[in-house]
Amino acid sequence: MTAAVDLIIMAAGKGTRMKSRLPKVLQRLAGRPLLQHVLDQAAHLGARSAVVVTGHGAQQVEDAITSAAQASPAAFALKFARQEPQLGTGHAVQQAVPLLPDDGVAVVLSGDVPLTEAATLRALVAAAGSERLALLTVALPDPTGYGRIVRTPEGAVQAIVEHKDASEAQRRIGEIYSGIMAVPARRLAGWLARLTNDNAQGEYYLTDIVAMAVADGVPVVAHCIDDALQVAGVNSPLQLAQLERAHQLRQAQRLMEQGVRLADPARFDLRDDARSGARAALECGQDVEIDAGCIFTGAVAIGEGASIGAHCCIANASIGAGAVIHPYTHIDGDRLGVSVGAGALIGPFARLRPGAQLGREVHIGNFVEVKNSTLADGAKANHLAYLGDATVGERVNYGAGSITANYDGANKHRTVIEADAHIGSNCVLVAPVTVGAGATVGGGSTIAKDVPAGALGVARGRQSNIGHWKRPAKLPKP
Amino acid sequence: MTAAVDLIIMAAGKGTRMKSRLPKVLQRLAGRPLLQHVLDQAAHLGARSAVVVTGHGAQQVEDAITSAAQASPAAFALKFARQEPQLGTGHAVQQAVPLLPDDGVAVVLSGDVPLTEAATLRALVAAAGSERLALLTVALPDPTGYGRIVRTPEGAVQAIVEHKDASEAQRRIGEIYSGIMAVPARRLAGWLARLTNDNAQGEYYLTDIVAMAVADGVPVVAHCIDDALQVAGVNSPLQLAQLERAHQLRQAQRLMEQGVRLADPARFDLRDDARSGARAALECGQDVEIDAGCIFTGAVAIGEGASIGAHCCIANASIGAGAVIHPYTHIDGDRLGVSVGAGALIGPFARLRPGAQLGREVHIGNFVEVKNSTLADGAKANHLAYLGDATVGERVNYGAGSITANYDGANKHRTVIEADAHIGSNCVLVAPVTVGAGATVGGGSTIAKDVPAGALGVARGRQSNIGHWKRPAKLPKP
Amino acid sequence: MTAAVDLIIMAAGKGTRMKSRLPKVLQRLAGRPLLQHVLDQAAHLGARSAVVVTGHGAQQVEDAITSAAQASPAAFALKFARQEPQLGTGHAVQQAVPLLPDDGVAVVLSGDVPLTEAATLRALVAAAGSERLALLTVALPDPTGYGRIVRTPEGAVQAIVEHKDASEAQRRIGEIYSGIMAVPARRLAGWLARLTNDNAQGEYYLTDIVAMAVADGVPVVAHCIDDALQVAGVNSPLQLAQLERAHQLRQAQRLMEQGVRLADPARFDLRDDARSGARAALECGQDVEIDAGCIFTGAVAIGEGASIGAHCCIANASIGAGAVIHPYTHIDGDRLGVSVGAGALIGPFARLRPGAQLGREVHIGNFVEVKNSTLADGAKANHLAYLGDATVGERVNYGAGSITANYDGANKHRTVIEADAHIGSNCVLVAPVTVGAGATVGGGSTIAKDVPAGALGVARGRQSNIGHWKRPAKLPKP
Repeated sequence: MTAAVDLIIMAAGKGTRMKSRLPKVLQRLAGRPLLQHVLDQAAHLGARSAVVVTGHGAQQVEDAITSAAQASPAAFALKFARQEPQLGTGHAVQQAVPLLPDDGVAVVLSGDVPLTEAATLRALVAAAGSERLALLTVALPDPTGYGRIVRTPEGAVQAIVEHKDASEAQRRIGEIYSGIMAVPARRLAGWLARLTNDNAQGEYYLTDIVAMAVADGVPVVAHCIDDALQVAGVNSPLQLAQLERAHQLRQAQRLMEQGVRLADPARFDLRDDARSGARAALECGQDVEIDAGCIFTGAVAIGEGASIGAHCCIANASIGAGAVIHPYTHIDGDRLGVSVGAGALIGPFARLRPGAQLGREVHIGNFVEVKNSTLADGAKANHLAYLGDATVGERVNYGAGSITANYDGANKHRTVIEADAHIGSNCVLVAPVTVGAGATVGGGSTIAKDVPAGALGVARGRQSNIGHWKRPAKLPKP
Repeated sequence: MTAAVDLIIMAAGKGTRMKSRLPKVLQRLAGRPLLQHVLDQAAHLGARSAVVVTGHGAQQVEDAITSAAQASPAAFALKFARQEPQLGTGHAVQQAVPLLPDDGVAVVLSGDVPLTEAATLRALVAAAGSERLALLTVALPDPTGYGRIVRTPEGAVQAIVEHKDASEAQRRIGEIYSGIMAVPARRLAGWLARLTNDNAQGEYYLTDIVAMAVADGVPVVAHCIDDALQVAGVNSPLQLAQLERAHQLRQAQRLMEQGVRLADPARFDLRDDARSGARAALECGQDVEIDAGCIFTGAVAIGEGASIGAHCCIANASIGAGAVIHPYTHIDGDRLGVSVGAGALIGPFARLRPGAQLGREVHIGNFVEVKNSTLADGAKANHLAYLGDATVGERVNYGAGSITANYDGANKHRTVIEADAHIGSNCVLVAPVTVGAGATVGGGSTIAKDVPAGALGVARGRQSNIGHWKRPAKLPKP
Repeated sequence: MTAAVDLIIMAAGKGTRMKSRLPKVLQRLAGRPLLQHVLDQAAHLGARSAVVVTGHGAQQVEDAITSAAQASPAAFALKFARQEPQLGTGHAVQQAVPLLPDDGVAVVLSGDVPLTEAATLRALVAAAGSERLALLTVALPDPTGYGRIVRTPEGAVQAIVEHKDASEAQRRIGEIYSGIMAVPARRLAGWLARLTNDNAQGEYYLTDIVAMAVADGVPVVAHCIDDALQVAGVNSPLQLAQLERAHQLRQAQRLMEQGVRLADPARFDLRDDARSGARAALECGQDVEIDAGCIFTGAVAIGEGASIGAHCCIANASIGAGAVIHPYTHIDGDRLGVSVGAGALIGPFARLRPGAQLGREVHIGNFVEVKNSTLADGAKANHLAYLGDATVGERVNYGAGSITANYDGANKHRTVIEADAHIGSNCVLVAPVTVGAGATVGGGSTIAKDVPAGALGVARGRQSNIGHWKRPAKLPKP
C-alpha cells in the first residue's frame, strides 16, 4: 500500500510583472485559472488533500477556488493557509504544515506552474516513497540562472547549488531543480523548523532542506524529465502566452491522435468557458474536420463526419453527424446550450445563441440569428433573419429579412410557426402569434394576429405607381 | 533517347492511425487526395503509364481516382492492380508487374507520400538509366529508426540495413532509404520472383532486391536529397497536418516569388475545391496584396493592384484589377463562378454566391448576399440586403434591408432592376417583377407589380400617430 | 558636446525582385513605407538633417515622403539628392555629400532596412565620435555570402573582405558588415573623391573608404550586434513578409510587457493606417485582453479591463473601459474616429463606421452597422439594423431589421430618436425625421413624418387572412 498524497500549493505571489489587478494564480490559461490547472493535477493524482498557501489577493483567490470547487466538487479535501507577509518558499510551506496530515507524502507545487502532467507527479511520489526526499528536476539545454542538481559520482543528489554560487564545473550541469518536490510529511516539519533566513534576501528557502536531508542521511533522489514545459512557471504575459500556445498545441495533438483532422494545429483553441465554468471538452466523432482559426469554448460535441469551417467560434454546443458549419459561424450555447441536428447546414455568418435547438437538416444561412428557438427537421432560414423565442415546425421556410418581434419593450413573447408554413420576405411576426400549419405569410407583412392553418396572411399597403417622379436633387453643400 | 517511365504506386494500406473511414490515400492534403498528388507527379514526369496497387478500400480508391481522371484526363495510361491480402511491399509490386511494359523504367512510389517534386523523380530516373537500380535517399539529421544506406568506400550502394540490424557504425549513417526507387522493368520481374518472406513479419520486402542487384552485378546508385518533406509519408492526422502546413508555406513562397505580397505566409491556404474538382490555382496580377487568414479554394484570379482583406474565403472566382475586398468576405463561385469587376468594393461581411457577376466599381457592403445575379457597372447594394436571381442595371442604388423575393415556395423567378433605378430601404421585390429605368421604389414597399421607367412605386400603409401611447408593462415572472 | 548627426539614406534602388510598380523603399511594413521606418529612426536619434538619395521612382519617393513629412513634421531637415544613373553605393553617397554640413557625423543608412533600433544607431554614432569611422556589424551563425570584418590581432578593424575574395580563414569569420556606418563628415568627402570604379561591376563602392581610413591612420571601429533583424534588408516579398512577422512579434512583446494579454502573439497585427496616415499606436489600460487574429490599424485606445474578441479589425478608435468587443467586429474610424463607451457590448458581426459615437453600456449586436451616428448611454440596436446619420437618445431600443433611410438618392439627412423611444422591428425611418422621447414605432412601419413624444407611430397595412390559400406549384423545368 502506498502512502496518501497531500499537496502544498504555493499561491501567495503577486505576479508584479503581470501588471494586472488579478492575483497571478488566477490568471487564465485556456480560460482556466493557473491555480485550477494545478488543482486538477491533484485530482488526477488521487491526492487526499491540498493546502493552498495564499497571500497576495488571498481572499480573492480563496473565493474563486472555493466557488469553482463547489461547482464541480473535487475528490480531495481543500484547505487554505495564509502567508502574510511572504518570507520565502520555506516560510510558505511552514504555513501549510499545520494543516497537513503527518502520515502522507507531501508534494510541494507552485500555483503558477500549470502544465505538469499527473504521470510526472505520480513518478515523483513513487520516487519519494515513504523514506526519501524526491526532487522533480529537468534537463535544460541552457540552464543559465537556475539552481543546479549536484550529484555524487554514484548519482545520489547532494545539493542544489544556485547559479551564482556554482563553480565552473557545476555550471556545466544541465539538470536543474523545478521547484516541485515530494517528501514524507513527518520529515518535513522537522526540517522546516530548522530553516533560517540567514542569507542575502533574508528569506526562508525550502531548498535548504535538501542539505538537511543529506546531513540526516535521508536519501535524496531526483525524478528528471526532459519536457521543460511541465515545470514552466508564469511570471509575465509573455510567458502566459507561450504556455497558452504550448498547451493549445498539445490539445490539438491529442485530438489529432483521436483522428480529428485539423487544417492547422497552430490555429486551434480549446478553452474553459469562464462565464458558465464549463470545462474545455471537445468530443469528436469519426472523420470530423476542423478548419483553421476555430475557437472552442466549454463543452462541445461534434458528430461523425461533421465539418467546421474556418474562423468559427463555438461554445457549449452539440453539432450533429454530417452537419456542415460554414466559416464565420458563431455558436454560443452559454448555460442553455445549442444543438444542431444531423446534416444541418449552418452559416456562413450565422449566429446561434443560447437555447437554439435545430433539428435534422435545418438550414441557417448568412446573417441569421437564432435565439432560444426550436426549429424542427428540415426548417430553413437562409438569409438575414432573426428568430427569437420561436417554435418553428418541420420544413418551414422562413423568408429573407423576416423578424420575430419577440420583445414588446417590457416582456418577451413566443412565436409559433407550424409545419410547412412559408413566411415571406421582410415580414414581422409580432409575438405572441401563431402561423398555422401550411399557412403562407405574404412578403412585407407585419403579422400581429394568428394566421390559420392553410391560409394566406397578408398585411401590406396597396402598390401605387406615380409616373414621372422627380427625385430630390443634390443640394449645394451648406 | 531515354526509356519510357512507368509508375507503380502503392496504395493498398489502411492507415489505421488515421482513424478514418476513408482509405489513407484518399485523405486530402490541400483539398486533394494524397494519391492524386502522387499521380500529378507522374503527369509532370511525363510517365507513360501508372499502375496503382489498391487493397484496403480498393473499390473506393479506384472509383475516386477514375472519376478524377475522367474529369481531367491525364496523359498516361492508368491501371489498377489489387493486392489482397497485403503481404509486404515486394508483394505489392508483384501485383503490379503483370500490368507493366517490360521496356521501361519502373518507378515505385507510395500513394501516401504527396510532396515529392517532379524534378527529384526526373533525377532518379536519370540515375537509373537503362541499367541501374536507383534509390531515392535522403540525408536526415536524426535517422533513428530508418533503413540506412550502406556504401562501399568508393561510394557504391551495397545494402539497405534496417535500424534494428545496424551496427554502431552503420547507425551513424545519416542517409536513409525513402521508399522510392527506379529500376529497369525487365530486371524487376526476375528479382521479384526470387523474393521470400523468410523474416520475422513473414512479408515480402521490396528492398531485398537491392542485395540481389548487388549479387547480380547490377549497379545500385542513390539519388540523395536533403529535403525530407519530399519523401515524408502520411500515417496520422498529425503528419497530415504537418505536410499540409509545409505545402501551404511552399505555395505561399511561390506566390511571393511572383510578387504577391502576403501579410503572413503562415496564415495562407490555397486548396483544391473538393466539390467541383477544381484544382487549386491562384493567379495574381502585379501588386496584389493578401492579408492574414485568407483561404482560397479552386481556381481564383486576382487582377493587378487588387487587395484581399483579412480572413476572407474565396473560391472559384475572378476579382478585377484594383478591386478592394474587405475583411470577412465570403465568395464562393462553386461551379458557376463569381466575377467581381475592376475597382469594385466588396465587404466587409459580404457574401457572393455562385453566379454573382459584378461589373466595374460595383459596391457590395456589409451583410449583403448576392446569388445568381448580374450587377452592371456602378451598381450599389451597401447594407443588409439580398439580391437573388436579379438583373441589376448600371448605377442602381439598392437600399438597405431590401430583398428580392425570388422564391415563391415552389419556383424561382427573376427580378429586373433597370439602370439608375433607386430602391428604398426594407423593400421586397416580389419576382417576377421589373423596376424600370430611373424608377424609384419608396422605402418599406412590397412591390409585386412592375414599376414603369421614371415612376415612383410605393406600397405602404399610411402613417398614424396615436398620442399618449401606453406601452406594455413588465409582467411579473410566472 | 557631441557632434550633430546627419543621415544619408540610400533609396535609389528599384527592387526588381519585389516585382512591383512601387519603388522598393515605398513598400510597406506594418502599413508604413520602408523608407519612413528609416526616417523615424532618424527622428528617434535626434538627427539634425537627412539626405535621401533617390533614383528609381525618384519623384514618387520624394512626393510620398514629403507629404508624410508635411502631415507630421519631423524635427530634422529633410533633403533629397538624385542618383541617376546608379553607379554604386559610393556614388550614391557622393550625390548626398554636397547637401551635407561638414561639421557633423554622417550616418549612412539604407532605405530598405526598416528595423534598426535607435539605440543601436546611437551606439554607432558614439563609437564614431569625431575622429573615427564606425561600422555597424553583426555576428551571424552563417555569414556565407557577406563581406567579412577582418581585424588585427588587437581587434582593430583592418578591412571588409567580400565573400568571394576571402581566404579560408577569413570565411570562418562570423562578423559581417551591415551596410550601415557612421563617419565624420569632413573625412567623408575626401575619401569619396578618391573612389574609383576599377572593379568587375564598374561601380563605386562605399566600403572602399575603409581601406582609405586605415591608410590615413584614421581608426576604424565596429559596433557589433547579434540581432540580425536590425540590419536585414528587404529585397523580395518573402523578406518583406519575414520582417513583417518579426516586427509584429516585437510589437506584441512590447504590449505584453506592458501587461496586455494576447491569446496568440503570432496572430496579432498593428499597422499604420495608409489612408489617413495615422501611425500605429495601440494604447491599452490595465487588464486588457486581446484574442487571436485581431488586426489594429492607426491609433487605437482600449480602456482598462476591456476585451477584444477573436478576428476583430479595429482602426482609429477608442474603446471604453470594460467594454466587450465580441468576435468578428469591424470598427473603422478612418479620419472621423469611432468611440465606444465604457461597458458597451459590441458584436459579434458588428460594424462601426467613421463617426460612430457610442455612449456607456450601449449594445450593438449582430449584423448591425452604425455610421456617423451618436448613441447615448444605454441605447441598444441588437439585431440586423442600420443606423446612419442618426442621433439616438438614452435607453432607446432600436428594433431588429430597422433602417434609417438617410439617403434620398441625392442628399443625406439626419434621423433623431429621442430618449427612451422604442423602434419596432423592420421599420424604415425616412430622414429627416424625429421620433420623440418615449415614443413607440410599431413594427413594420415606414415613418416619414415625425412621431411626437410619447405617441405611437404606426404605418402598416391591415392584416387579412385568406383561407385555403393555394400556393404556386413547382413548374416543370423548361
